[in-house]
Amino acid sequence: MKLVIAIVHDDDVQPLLEDLTSKEFRVTKLATTGGFLRAGNTTLLIGVDDERLDQVIEIVKNNCESREQITTSPAPVTGTAGVFVPYPIEVKVGGATIFVVDIEKYIKL
Amino acid sequence: MKLVIAIVHDDDVQPLLEDLTSKEFRVTKLATTGGFLRAGNTTLLIGVDDERLDQVIEIVKNNCESREQITTSPAPVTGTAGVFVPYPIEVKVGGATIFVVDIEKYIKL
Amino acid sequence: MKLVIAIVHDDDVQPLLEDLTSKEFRVTKLATTGGFLRAGNTTLLIGVDDERLDQVIEIVKNNCESREQITTSPAPVTGTAGVFVPYPIEVKVGGATIFVVDIEKYIKL
Ligand code: NI
Ligand code: NI
Ligand code: NI
Repeated sequence: MKLVIAIVHDDDVQPLLEDLTSKEFRVTKLATTGGFLRAGNTTLLIGVDDERLDQVIEIVKNNCESREQITTSPAPVTGTAGVFVPYPIEVKVGGATIFVVDIEKYIKL
Repeated sequence: MKLVIAIVHDDDVQPLLEDLTSKEFRVTKLATTGGFLRAGNTTLLIGVDDERLDQVIEIVKNNCESREQITTSPAPVTGTAGVFVPYPIEVKVGGATIFVVDIEKYIKL
Repeated sequence: MKLVIAIVHDDDVQPLLEDLTSKEFRVTKLATTGGFLRAGNTTLLIGVDDERLDQVIEIVKNNCESREQITTSPAPVTGTAGVFVPYPIEVKVGGATIFVVDIEKYIKL
């Protein structure tokens, strides 16, 4: 049995949790505040049988992998002369860190 | 030395903490928000010598084991004709998940 | 690769995080509420290569080691006759608990 500690972006938590629980994985969500550059992360604890470890990792990948997203440039804060034309910008979203730790004993009461 | 990660129901945390600390175990309580079906859980970290591992597990069992409880049926939300007679219903409370992980190094500063 | 779980006092978190991130360590900060006697603690997760484990421990030591601090006695709450002379008192601050756990797999998405 393994313990998967997954640190994922807050934005990705909801779909990831739905995906995991729909496949009968049991997840505990810890409140996380993130370090300096990691604000907005959530830590999940997932206990998993050895045979299903790859499946968990695959699910986290599908939902959290670092990717680029096209967003619209924000409107200027203070009034600018002329017409503001929003332009598309690329931002990096997602990304996750996964630690897999061996469990010596697992008890469900 | 082992690290015990215990995910217990919020209701059981207070008596469990009292029991553990009265027996000189050192506990750290993490804020937990729970996954879908696990709202209201708390995660505890307990560092323990190998010889006392069984004792910790026993204490968690005593305080958190899944059990049935008789409660009174809630009053109907909107007015019903006639008299409302509350009736006893059985609900499942408690339950816990325990992960035991081996610690390579333990340092107390 | 190792996972370092460090439980440190809230007061020491900010300088510790600055120190760790300035040396390129990646830290996740969990919200902690502490047990009975441990209110005001924060739990940090730090993934680290075996070769840098001693360095992490050294940094935690430098920032969190239990130490004595001179503080001024608090003013009496209700009015006392005469003049209140604050006097220096010694209090213990800091202290930390470090668990080092082996990581079977580490994935950065
Ligand atoms: Ni990120
Ligand atoms: Ni439960
Ligand atoms: Ni302390």
